[in-house]
Amino acid sequence: MRILIIGAAGMIGAKLVRRLSADGALGGRPIDRLDLVDVVEPSRPKAAMPVTTAAADIGDPEVATRLFAARPDVVFHLAAIVSGEAERDFDKGYRVNLDATRALLEAARAQSVRSSGTWKAKFVFASSIAVFGAPFPDPIPDDYFAQPLTSYGTQKAIDELLVDDYSRRGFVDGASLRLPTICVRPGAPNAAASGFFSNIMREPLAGKPAVLPVPDDVRHWHASPRAAVGFFLHAAALPEGALGARRAVTLPGVSVTVAEQVEALRRIAGEDAVRLIERRPDETIMRIVSGWPTRFEARRARDLGFRADADFDAILRAHVEDELGGRIGG
Amino acid sequence: MRILIIGAAGMIGAKLVRRLSADGALGGRPIDRLDLVDVVEPSRPKAAMPVTTAAADIGDPEVATRLFAARPDVVFHLAAIVSGEAERDFDKGYRVNLDATRALLEAARAQSVRSSGTWKAKFVFASSIAVFGAPFPDPIPDDYFAQPLTSYGTQKAIDELLVDDYSRRGFVDGASLRLPTICVRPGAPNAAASGFFSNIMREPLAGKPAVLPVPDDVRHWHASPRAAVGFFLHAAALPEGALGARRAVTLPGVSVTVAEQVEALRRIAGEDAVRLIERRPDETIMRIVSGWPTRFEARRARDLGFRADADFDAILRAHVEDELGGRIGG
Repeated sequence: MRILIIGAAGMIGAKLVRRLSADGALGGRPIDRLDLVDVVEPSRPKAAMPVTTAAADIGDPEVATRLFAARPDVVFHLAAIVSGEAERDFDKGYRVNLDATRALLEAARAQSVRSSGTWKAKFVFASSIAVFGAPFPDPIPDDYFAQPLTSYGTQKAIDELLVDDYSRRGFVDGASLRLPTICVRPGAPNAAASGFFSNIMREPLAGKPAVLPVPDDVRHWHASPRAAVGFFLHAAALPEGALGARRAVTLPGVSVTVAEQVEALRRIAGEDAVRLIERRPDETIMRIVSGWPTRFEARRARDLGFRADADFDAILRAHVEDELGGRIGG
Repeated sequence: MRILIIGAAGMIGAKLVRRLSADGALGGRPIDRLDLVDVVEPSRPKAAMPVTTAAADIGDPEVATRLFAARPDVVFHLAAIVSGEAERDFDKGYRVNLDATRALLEAARAQSVRSSGTWKAKFVFASSIAVFGAPFPDPIPDDYFAQPLTSYGTQKAIDELLVDDYSRRGFVDGASLRLPTICVRPGAPNAAASGFFSNIMREPLAGKPAVLPVPDDVRHWHASPRAAVGFFLHAAALPEGALGARRAVTLPGVSVTVAEQVEALRRIAGEDAVRLIERRPDETIMRIVSGWPTRFEARRARDLGFRADADFDAILRAHVEDELGGRIGG
């Protein structure tokens, strides 16, 4: 099978590439070829199968047409600008997060029509729990309405509707994955409002200090990068029709308070690590975080076989294994 | 105040024009001018205030820009192609029902930015209960998810998300009205799958036969054209901020079975009228109708002051008064 990954240079994209390269197969079918695209050229993985890498502007309809000319069996679409940037730059957000996704779906449709219906791609789209906006019931049921409070969430919610309609029409076999917040994010601390959820774990695990800007009772919905990669692989291997008309799936996650995160850190890395967390309240971040969801039922996703991390300890252990070579404390 | 009506030649659009022309005011403020636009030139109402009429392609961004150059205080956007056509012609549906709405919102945004925030339009958008798709809880709560099963419903759901985001950003003061099925529709019987709900009332009331293609226990959600006009006027007069971040409102309606419709007809027009209904089951229509919603809570809309028809008898009486000059039986 031929796989196209759009957004292959991003954090999850790169991990997905490594996993597919190592596995050599997806859903029991051997991978014949990997095509990797992003706004910057993705790095080339060690892989037995042929791999192409390219930097491309996916918002350009000609680029979208070219990407689908090879009739990929599976397309992972993870390319997006993040919520902060989509809020700052209204036009760029709509161009990248909405128009580009529509251009990809249009290219898939054109190619499917050209094939007289003999070809259609599995189209796995990275959506987000940002499609939801406060106030929320607790837990949030699977049939709760998508009422985003950001332009980013709006763009993702619109993309989901497009994936549904293009799937219903038979142009693609779509799946939209509403990812939990990814924690622990590897790499340097970033300025995203959600960054502290990862910072207060990743930095102490590496022997470094970190700032906690919200109270310990703040609750949120998490998945490890490893679980996120698992979600994409599971969605790609679902038989056609498994999702029916409702292609958007709220994924299972781990719902914990910051206090429970800190307790998990204590169990995994000890009191010395916990002491590296400095409480420095930030009103702006507290206000932003108060609009975020805390807990979902995610019953449908579990019934479909999507698997969350077992608990927050498992999230920390995955980080220590995957990013720190099993070594805690830097 | 200056009012722009897009889709002014349609059935509801024309009734809204007549009402505004007659009232001369909206929400207690005198109307200085009415600008009427549709794909065909709207007819000119008897009105004391200046009225312009124009045929225009609202999907053309230059047209949208021109419409907003006059900085209307209130915009009613009712222009759309209907669900059957949007399902048959995929590209036309997206162009008219999605791209044109986005072009209008973009023109409103550009004009608002140019005014340095001193002007923004009240933007009242005609959405539909087609944003919902079966299976449904009964009744459907206000926070039930929009999961359309048609391209038309998809386009309306996307438009709602855009109206929300453009409102949140302060570019317009939006309201999206999820209209019930309009019954009794005046005019000739049409081929829409929902047409029979009106046909079996309108034709016998005029002394003519009509075909009922579904069983008597089919339940649906109705509003008279008069109630629909009332919804638009009420939305336009709501103070800014009344809708908060959630600009889409599921409107109240009358939930009745076909049997209850027929009983109302018997009360209003007698047994002779009822005898004009011929039962001729149509599997295709029955299948389509089985995917439609039957009953909504619509609690939020009622709390906001939107008023449904009192019952189905009131819907029939409104038709007899507004369309038949009070005369039953042709």
